[in-house]
Amino acid sequence: MIKLSKEELLIASKISQLKEAAGSHSPSIFTIVEQLPMLNIKVDACFLSNPYATDLFLEYLKKELVDTSKLRDVLEFYPSQNEVIAEIIGKSININKENIIVGNGAIELIQAVMHRFVGDKVIVNIPTFSSYYEFAKDRTEVVFHQLEKKNNYELNVEEYIKFVKNHKPDSVVIINPNNPNGGYLPYEELRYILNNLKEVKNIIVDESFIHFAFEDSDLSLISATELFKEFSNVIVIKSMSKDFGIAGIRCGYAVMDRHKVSELLKNGYLWNSSGLSEYFFRLYKRADFFNEYEIVRKRYIKEAQIFFEELTKIPQIKVYPGMANFALIELIDGSTSADFISKMLIKYGVYARTGSDKIGLNGEFIRIASRTEKENKIIIDSMKDMFQNE
Amino acid sequence: MIKLSKEELLIASKISQLKEAAGSHSPSIFTIVEQLPMLNIKVDACFLSNPYATDLFLEYLKKELVDTSKLRDVLEFYPSQNEVIAEIIGKSININKENIIVGNGAIELIQAVMHRFVGDKVIVNIPTFSSYYEFAKDRTEVVFHQLEKKNNYELNVEEYIKFVKNHKPDSVVIINPNNPNGGYLPYEELRYILNNLKEVKNIIVDESFIHFAFEDSDLSLISATELFKEFSNVIVIKSMSKDFGIAGIRCGYAVMDRHKVSELLKNGYLWNSSGLSEYFFRLYKRADFFNEYEIVRKRYIKEAQIFFEELTKIPQIKVYPGMANFALIELIDGSTSADFISKMLIKYGVYARTGSDKIGLNGEFIRIASRTEKENKIIIDSMKDMFQNE
Repeated sequence: MIKLSKEELLIASKISQLKEAAGSHSPSIFTIVEQLPMLNIKVDACFLSNPYATDLFLEYLKKELVDTSKLRDVLEFYPSQNEVIAEIIGKSININKENIIVGNGAIELIQAVMHRFVGDKVIVNIPTFSSYYEFAKDRTEVVFHQLEKKNNYELNVEEYIKFVKNHKPDSVVIINPNNPNGGYLPYEELRYILNNLKEVKNIIVDESFIHFAFEDSDLSLISATELFKEFSNVIVIKSMSKDFGIAGIRCGYAVMDRHKVSELLKNGYLWNSSGLSEYFFRLYKRADFFNEYEIVRKRYIKEAQIFFEELTKIPQIKVYPGMANFALIELIDGSTSADFISKMLIKYGVYARTGSDKIGLNGEFIRIASRTEKENKIIIDSMKDMFQNE
Repeated sequence: MIKLSKEELLIASKISQLKEAAGSHSPSIFTIVEQLPMLNIKVDACFLSNPYATDLFLEYLKKELVDTSKLRDVLEFYPSQNEVIAEIIGKSININKENIIVGNGAIELIQAVMHRFVGDKVIVNIPTFSSYYEFAKDRTEVVFHQLEKKNNYELNVEEYIKFVKNHKPDSVVIINPNNPNGGYLPYEELRYILNNLKEVKNIIVDESFIHFAFEDSDLSLISATELFKEFSNVIVIKSMSKDFGIAGIRCGYAVMDRHKVSELLKNGYLWNSSGLSEYFFRLYKRADFFNEYEIVRKRYIKEAQIFFEELTKIPQIKVYPGMANFALIELIDGSTSADFISKMLIKYGVYARTGSDKIGLNGEFIRIASRTEKENKIIIDSMKDMFQNE
């Protein structure tokens, strides 16, 4: 069992205060560094992103903005309006611009959808990303659909359809792959659900981690966006923070019925992109960038799979199977997740995320991101060393 | 009277199509450049910002982010949550963090206030920034209070108080200095209005141009934020895009009663700052940056005053007095504002903004920004040349 020294306990209490202040999310790495300067953070394994994609984006940014001094234009001038950027995204994902709204991160669109379209009742699978219930309005009843631990927190399709039909909500949320367990619903199963839930007004499909999922050996890209063409009650929400490693730029979009897009644009969301997010979306539609992205996406998936494999070899934890870029692990040696987080951060400089605040997770859970090959090795070695010294 | 050649007429029709598509705002410089590559734009006099402040910000950005490779952190990681950045701003403006909400540009906060706090009736002075009526919800009655042309579109304080008391709105909007005429309400007059309108639930004071206004020969900074401490019905909205010349980063904040802040943060606005906007707000509170900013702010004000002075010497136009960083001018030689805009853009590469879409402006109006000393000279010379060749 993990045990903390007196000194570690002191820092640990500060960490848990910061966690408290950040609500149901982790405190940012900046806050941690600022408030706990004694820590030497080597790996941010809280942060769910492909670092190779960040490298790629920064290469383009340096070449095209920094070195040419076009960076000034991007920071100084007003970016284009929502509809202009929607058109650019539409070219990337093969969807009409009328069906797209751009967000200042996916979170802005989660907020928009929860406030404007979700009505009296929404079903949210738990454990999951908390904003889907925290952003619900007072008059919206949130019905939790518990994913079962014995089923590795994966969705049981038939049981889910029954549950929804029974509760008759106006909206449901499906995060695919799900966060924090990475549970993945294959395309045809999602299609089967949509076929059976045509009466639900809004089927919100959050695909923020979809670039890390795969169904063939080529690791080809998958997306529910195509299903939107078949089922107009689908609202696809997509963050670009994870797959492209650019959370600081705040890029996201949603695909939905054009009447819904019009309703939102009618009195808001006019200038919600930054100059850099416009630059990113213009890059995203370019073949040169996208082809290079595909290489680093596949490299990252392969390394993540190896990382998960290595984790399963550690006897003190159980690794839940998933298709995102993180592993949900459960401590089965009697340690608490708080002690795991503190020890890893203080002794090894590895910042991981506790699952203790996730409604619907029953046990001592940690969510740990796959980072670069080198960082993954640090994480694995640190964990092994920590458990050896128990 | 300004006349266009056949070739110019052709481009002019494309310009007006772009304008049409952008609604009640001007198309961005990027859109113009992309759609009309034949144009050689030298001066963007649509764009209301202090270019010296942009220079200053870029200096810091280069030194602290680009040259140190900290830029990556800012782009890759999640920025801090709303309340963390509110605390940083609070230190700059001497206001409790509980009274501050950060926005993805002031526009996000205009939207939030119009959707969440404005009730059945709002009074908006016209002409003004259109979002204050365009973002109103369907159930909100917008009552226009016409600023009188014979009064140079300036607010008549006694008449305004009477007008408000007569209409009994729950909310009023005062933009100070006003856009598009720059009309300025001195601090004590604003205080007088607030003292007389205590029964109005929300007094929205938009101070996005306040850094360009002055009441003493030292050009000291003024702000209604102090008045908020005295009158809790005041909501101060502040864009940083104009004074700091960083519209592409989307920085804004609002100061309001803490119950209003809590209501907004309760189910939204969690991660609406980008990494660069967090960096900006951290810079803003630093004395080294702020002291340098004060120098370029005052320099810019002085040059703007000279620019306005030069404009008044052109006999074909009337210049309206104002205290913002732009001049509202009226064409009094029989030319149309559309022809003015087209000719200036096509022949001289100067992009100015028509006033033709501004509700409440009666005549042929142009809004023209003060830019650098050199650019202002180009604008003045171009206008003189254009009118000479009439």
